[in-house]
Amino acid sequence: MDFDSLFNAQLDTLKAEGNYRIFANLERHCGDFPKARNHSDGADEVTVWCSNDYLGMGQHPKVRQAMKDAIDKCGAGAGGTRNISGTNHAHTELEGELADLHGKEAALLFTSGYVSNWAALSTLGARLPNAVILSDELNHASMIEGIRHSRADKILWKHNDPEDLDRKLAALPANATKIVAFESVYSMDGDIAPIREIVEVAEKHNALTYLDEVHAVGLYGARGGGISEREGVADRITLIEGTLGKAYGVVGGYITGSEALCDFIRSFASGFIFTTALPPAVAAAAQTSIAHLKQSSAERTQQRRQVARLRAALDREGIPHLENPSHIIPVMIKDPVKCRQIADILMQDHGIYVQPINYPTVPKGTERLRFTPSPLHTDADIDHLVHALTQLWKQCALARAVA
Amino acid sequence: MDFDSLFNAQLDTLKAEGNYRIFANLERHCGDFPKARNHSDGADEVTVWCSNDYLGMGQHPKVRQAMKDAIDKCGAGAGGTRNISGTNHAHTELEGELADLHGKEAALLFTSGYVSNWAALSTLGARLPNAVILSDELNHASMIEGIRHSRADKILWKHNDPEDLDRKLAALPANATKIVAFESVYSMDGDIAPIREIVEVAEKHNALTYLDEVHAVGLYGARGGGISEREGVADRITLIEGTLGKAYGVVGGYITGSEALCDFIRSFASGFIFTTALPPAVAAAAQTSIAHLKQSSAERTQQRRQVARLRAALDREGIPHLENPSHIIPVMIKDPVKCRQIADILMQDHGIYVQPINYPTVPKGTERLRFTPSPLHTDADIDHLVHALTQLWKQCALARAVA
Ligand SMILES: Cc1ncc(COP(=O)(O)O)c(C=O)c1O
Ligand SMILES: Cc1ncc(COP(=O)(O)O)c(C=O)c1O
Repeated sequence: MDFDSLFNAQLDTLKAEGNYRIFANLERHCGDFPKARNHSDGADEVTVWCSNDYLGMGQHPKVRQAMKDAIDKCGAGAGGTRNISGTNHAHTELEGELADLHGKEAALLFTSGYVSNWAALSTLGARLPNAVILSDELNHASMIEGIRHSRADKILWKHNDPEDLDRKLAALPANATKIVAFESVYSMDGDIAPIREIVEVAEKHNALTYLDEVHAVGLYGARGGGISEREGVADRITLIEGTLGKAYGVVGGYITGSEALCDFIRSFASGFIFTTALPPAVAAAAQTSIAHLKQSSAERTQQRRQVARLRAALDREGIPHLENPSHIIPVMIKDPVKCRQIADILMQDHGIYVQPINYPTVPKGTERLRFTPSPLHTDADIDHLVHALTQLWKQCALARAVA
Repeated sequence: MDFDSLFNAQLDTLKAEGNYRIFANLERHCGDFPKARNHSDGADEVTVWCSNDYLGMGQHPKVRQAMKDAIDKCGAGAGGTRNISGTNHAHTELEGELADLHGKEAALLFTSGYVSNWAALSTLGARLPNAVILSDELNHASMIEGIRHSRADKILWKHNDPEDLDRKLAALPANATKIVAFESVYSMDGDIAPIREIVEVAEKHNALTYLDEVHAVGLYGARGGGISEREGVADRITLIEGTLGKAYGVVGGYITGSEALCDFIRSFASGFIFTTALPPAVAAAAQTSIAHLKQSSAERTQQRRQVARLRAALDREGIPHLENPSHIIPVMIKDPVKCRQIADILMQDHGIYVQPINYPTVPKGTERLRFTPSPLHTDADIDHLVHALTQLWKQCALARAVA
């Protein structure tokens, strides 16, 4: 059987739609964030404008040093699953740091934020009696797949709409175990959920609350505890999930909650049990990053300044971008082919790297460029970006006028 | 609603069965493998006897150095998903190394072996027309969950039994896309699959072959390409999956196969797309480890010597262990409570750490101690272990005689 032709047929469809993905091949320059060497087509040196290392912590001297020290002390890998020789002191220390970050009794580490969502939701949905998961309709793929895997009943509620959630909770039978799953910062539109209202609705119906703070931890709240810290509702949320791979600049994921909750997931989640633990060096680096951002707000303040500066410059030049209260600036293109073309020109002619965002990451017809200014993007970087975009917008307007 | 009581009820069942897990909290000593500092109850210094860092490569100076150099060069994390700014030169270099290792056109990196199995099998099963997955009945949890997630039809065949597979393939309709999923070295019994016979049966029925070489890569074959290299059948297997977290001593997983196959999984697998890429430093360390074990057999040779030595010593003392042709030595206890007790005594009185293996890692009633001698376990380490086990066995015999 010619399997390749089966694979190619589906790849050809992607290509015809303009949804086939080409990865930029980069080499980040330590100490020179957000610059990187580009091994793909285009300029040799680029400024990265779409990283989720939101604060540049992945290159922070303290974080790098902690990682290197742990390698010297313990080696490269953990050497086993958490149960079979893989639990290292660095893991339990990091779990303590994470529990403290969210003011919870306990935390549990996973190999990624994706796996933490998938494993925790699939275990809760599968093992709680008569579980029904009420999922915000724009939840991340990792939550969707976890819910799907659990085979629990699933109900979608309107994005960020506590009233719709209220109605849907009210309609459920009394014996259902209700799980409300949502995010704080939605990464593609950059909007922020009304989490206090959602928590209040959930409490009214005795529902368990499951909050993904992946795009908020390190960035919001006085200690980087996310939107739940900023809004003062962390203690009312049953489970807070996050990543070590975005604002904290490393890799890995986690959940926090009660001792019993974390012990339950630890004991039953296949995606936690049957996999090699994160390297102790990764855990040590992440812990250092979290601890730093607990007491330093300088990175957050400077990031906000640069986000505001980019927004204002785009407004001045009439380049439309989605309004939102977060650090994410989406410029909508609404066509996968055009989106790729603009990104290619930015890369080739201007040394600006921003990945075109297409389906399945966003719905078809909402393709965009998504800019994430960091504290390390300089004013000159911003000016250069806006200048390039302005030129491109003028050329497009010209093209439209002539066409 | 008191969710904790729901969690605790299920945890209490585990505890009553003796299946509740307590993780040893270790601190590996770099340069002193397999020794570690023990932060849990028991001796302060232990010899680890159950690591899956089978060759001690996690502490190899070259591997550590590569990881530290990459941190200096690129920082701690990748800074994004593979698509959105997270592809680093180190990832594509590693994918090249892996394709070469198995003699395949291409390779694709995942955050873990677990995720590679789960994501690849769920994508193949879900997207190939009329897919039927024929799964060895003892396949690993990550494969089982991937198959479950795909919602493709699933047929179990008898463990390592090509004839049973043949019958089951023959019974399938002509229009089915058949996927045969199996492992080479089964990690809990240490038995090795008759992969040539399995491949021949699959070929006869035009089935795609999916082989997990997680416990074989780095360890078997002249260049560490696994059992498929040793048996000379790698080119006849459609997809070879492996891990970077066991013999290679780091963390991460991968698949290798044709360009079209890897591009297909790259383009459609949720578990590949929607997650932060591995740190470039992890990729660099893994590549160094693979490259080293491609040209050095010294580690494999010494490991085999120590495995043989431990087996012979156990035989001499009449301590029963499962016969198998691999590097894994299971000593069957067949009771979760006794298994934990023996492991506790070894830890407390002898400074020997071997994790009791219980359900769900192995079926209930087949609880065991699983020893994995490495090239770095000395003859004295082996003598000490066998001496301790012999004492324990005598005490048990005495206890039985008196009872
Ligand atoms: C909302 C959300 N949750 C979870 C994840 C997964 O986190 P990680 O990258 O650590 O796997 C992501 C993105 O990757 C995300 O956007
Ligand atoms: C057969 C098998 N496949 C896959 C895995 C998962 O690999 P990883 O530890 O890299 O997630 C394991 C063990 O962890 C395994 O035993």
